[in-house]
Amino acid sequence: MYLTQGLHRSLQQNPDRLAITFKGRRRTFREFADHVARLAAALRGLGMSEGERVGMLALNSDRYLEYVMGVWWGGGVLNPVNTRWSAAEIGYSLDDCDTRILIVDDHFIDMARAVCTLASKAPILIHAGDGAAPAGMLSFDALIAAATPLPDAGRRGDDLACIMYTGGTTGFPKGVMQTHLNMWSSCIMRIAECAPLPDSAVLHAAPFFHAAGLGRALLQFMAGEAHVIIPAFDAGDVLEAIGTQRVSETLLVPTMIQSLLDHPDFARTDLSSLKRLTYGASPIPEALLDRVIRSLPGVELAHSYGMTEACPSISANPPSNHDEAGRRSGLYRSIGRGLPGLMVKVVDVHGEEVPRGMVGEIVVRGPNVMAGYWKKPDETAQAVRGGWLHTGDGAYMDAQGYLYIVDRIKDMIISGGENVYSAEVENVIVRHPAVAACAVIGIPHDIWGEAVHAVIVRKPGATIAEEEVREHCRQAIAGYKCPKSVEFRDRLPLSGAGKVLKREIRAPYWAQKTRSVK
Amino acid sequence: MYLTQGLHRSLQQNPDRLAITFKGRRRTFREFADHVARLAAALRGLGMSEGERVGMLALNSDRYLEYVMGVWWGGGVLNPVNTRWSAAEIGYSLDDCDTRILIVDDHFIDMARAVCTLASKAPILIHAGDGAAPAGMLSFDALIAAATPLPDAGRRGDDLACIMYTGGTTGFPKGVMQTHLNMWSSCIMRIAECAPLPDSAVLHAAPFFHAAGLGRALLQFMAGEAHVIIPAFDAGDVLEAIGTQRVSETLLVPTMIQSLLDHPDFARTDLSSLKRLTYGASPIPEALLDRVIRSLPGVELAHSYGMTEACPSISANPPSNHDEAGRRSGLYRSIGRGLPGLMVKVVDVHGEEVPRGMVGEIVVRGPNVMAGYWKKPDETAQAVRGGWLHTGDGAYMDAQGYLYIVDRIKDMIISGGENVYSAEVENVIVRHPAVAACAVIGIPHDIWGEAVHAVIVRKPGATIAEEEVREHCRQAIAGYKCPKSVEFRDRLPLSGAGKVLKREIRAPYWAQKTRSVK
Repeated sequence: MYLTQGLHRSLQQNPDRLAITFKGRRRTFREFADHVARLAAALRGLGMSEGERVGMLALNSDRYLEYVMGVWWGGGVLNPVNTRWSAAEIGYSLDDCDTRILIVDDHFIDMARAVCTLASKAPILIHAGDGAAPAGMLSFDALIAAATPLPDAGRRGDDLACIMYTGGTTGFPKGVMQTHLNMWSSCIMRIAECAPLPDSAVLHAAPFFHAAGLGRALLQFMAGEAHVIIPAFDAGDVLEAIGTQRVSETLLVPTMIQSLLDHPDFARTDLSSLKRLTYGASPIPEALLDRVIRSLPGVELAHSYGMTEACPSISANPPSNHDEAGRRSGLYRSIGRGLPGLMVKVVDVHGEEVPRGMVGEIVVRGPNVMAGYWKKPDETAQAVRGGWLHTGDGAYMDAQGYLYIVDRIKDMIISGGENVYSAEVENVIVRHPAVAACAVIGIPHDIWGEAVHAVIVRKPGATIAEEEVREHCRQAIAGYKCPKSVEFRDRLPLSGAGKVLKREIRAPYWAQKTRSVK
Repeated sequence: MYLTQGLHRSLQQNPDRLAITFKGRRRTFREFADHVARLAAALRGLGMSEGERVGMLALNSDRYLEYVMGVWWGGGVLNPVNTRWSAAEIGYSLDDCDTRILIVDDHFIDMARAVCTLASKAPILIHAGDGAAPAGMLSFDALIAAATPLPDAGRRGDDLACIMYTGGTTGFPKGVMQTHLNMWSSCIMRIAECAPLPDSAVLHAAPFFHAAGLGRALLQFMAGEAHVIIPAFDAGDVLEAIGTQRVSETLLVPTMIQSLLDHPDFARTDLSSLKRLTYGASPIPEALLDRVIRSLPGVELAHSYGMTEACPSISANPPSNHDEAGRRSGLYRSIGRGLPGLMVKVVDVHGEEVPRGMVGEIVVRGPNVMAGYWKKPDETAQAVRGGWLHTGDGAYMDAQGYLYIVDRIKDMIISGGENVYSAEVENVIVRHPAVAACAVIGIPHDIWGEAVHAVIVRKPGATIAEEEVREHCRQAIAGYKCPKSVEFRDRLPLSGAGKVLKREIRAPYWAQKTRSVK
């Protein structure tokens, strides 16, 4: 009941307010809750018992939120599937937490069938689409239509609410166990940190299978706000939705904001309803901040930082640090301060807090820290030590408690006793006009422990030699941070989500050795 | 660590900000936290083990907040003592939950000694005052000065944080068990409902031994706000504190607001720093609302409703319902809507929700609902049924979810199948110029079940007869609500806190019978 509470509250206060808009379908809270209570009954009828997982493999839609609330209403546990994963990864994650019911939209019918052939026990498939259900699948809409609404199962507190898989790119995916209290507390702390806009309509462009997208949707339910949904991020679709649905707020990553501003429809879209842009995944580049201030006057910018294991929110950098003063002080580059209600600190490898300004790992403690990884006690003990979740993010904290991320801890290079942040070196190298992409890693070195090594992809037709790279770097950063060796490649290995797989680049160098930083 | 978290956060972000002002003593968060960590060590040295109770019998002071945070920092549990109770009641409550350390200020030295002679095992007494400790007592300041700061014990979640005794006027006091999660969630939901004022300094006039006063202090720690403390409510002291300490906010009850406005110093005090008045205990009378709007332009009014068993917050009526429109719509009379993050409803005696506009009992469910009454499983089961805390308050809910209290459930009269709210009848009777005070109760009646009976205290020298009372009532309310019988007395029986003891008035009438409403 913790996580369906926002829906109950909206039903109590504003049953006939518009709750959800998707592709021209509009539902009030009363209509939405009716679907939810029926879906809960249908899932129970298909064998979902209390605490049992139900998966969904789909783009964003109104049905996705019916799945989210319907599973909880019926006492079940979400297992939202990463749509970017391979059939093998999806099959592993479904098997791992024993998900026996999988809801699939039209985009993933073939994938679902492929997953079923791999899974040790094929799940029941439910088709959440507009047309007739394909062979071998039940119809989401027909199940809802035929069901008799159930009362809320009332799960709460430490009851499991969701298993969200992460880390598919680095070994076996791990199922992050998120309880009702975990997700509830993340929402209420975010609301406490930043008051919802009155009568807000929030556009979902981030995928619901991701902790940030789902967390945003839950926060909105708790605040009683309306949801505007598009299947996935597309700059044109976002602009159209804002213009036609009077969207007041949305959550994007900086590159998406960039593509909105670059879109030909930007200038001719009525964006007067937009009041707040929350961004995540990375700080906002200065040039982009300037463009937003110029192009979207009166629109607040806020940074939200978190991770799946924090269910998901950890810190926030408020709108007040994104104005001219924040730009001058550099505060806009911060991921903000820990949310009210939780604790953050920056620690060394022994878990001791480091002095302000010194880089260490961000750790967080609070009611939002995950219950653990599903059936992986060793990985849980590694991630949560003494109650502190270790984020893996290298950062420093200033005198006022603002956090600045410098690198992933595992990508930091320790060379001759000095910390080198791969991200800092990469940011310098990619500014060279001949460089298309680059990854900086540490490779073994007999004297320094690790040496800075750059892997570079040149732009088509461009030329640049090793010594030029070093010279370019020396002009911008200290000598010990400059690459000791440079390697040119045609491409970098990327994950399904587009992340550079540094582990893969590092592997051959470290085959016979052990890194001190894991 | 849940409840010391706000202090840690202030230490991280604003260590040198002014934290507490009391009688000219001013401490920064760093200084305050140093006292807290030393007091924690001193209490451990005196035998306070994890989860063990420490009492405090004192007016408000800076030392009271050191006690609150110091006990938690050391892993202990608060038992804040009601200063209005008799030695017998205090002795019972200390014995009941095995409180072996009691901190006492100068006002309660004699009372503490009296309590010690009654308690089955006399607690260690610590004197929290400015002078030398009296014989047989340790010195609070000396203990702090001699101690070496301890790290935070880090208690959290379902760990017990506080036992707060209630109900001393109606049978044995009951110890309300409040966990870290209970009190933490109440604070964060209140902040989510109503954003703290920036750089706020909040005046504490409500006693810290009461759930409202303590809850307000905790909320301020979580929001990182400064505390201005006076020993107890006194209109002159409140005005002086606001004027000299630049207080931005305070929590009062309506009669206290009235006495501020009536005070001769009101007009000559600089109240320009005051931004918000939160009131509790009862809705604000219309005439007083008008006076506040006129006399304190720009000051927000907000109503906060709760009870000890809800640790303590349940609902809030925001400033927007206290303006001219709220006054016209009558919304200012509401106790507001359930806080975001919890659920409220109005139910009948079977626990079923009643239609909007119909009176029933307010029930609440959420992470803030107490863990139970200490060693009183039967009373706990009676108060919390199916996860729902039964408040004992009779109220109705409007279409938008706003709650309006009409009476305590146990004071409602069921006469001929009609509900009569004693508070409504009393409000009519006391408007008669000859009436000083009045209590309306239900007494047994063979035909109607209960009959409305008024007990009236006349103003000195005034005369009014039974028939006049009835005639006065008939002009204002329906016939079935008017008293069937009237009784005149010299005084009404009052509790230590000044509440009319209706149970005592009712008792002789019901000696041979059983009321259907308990």
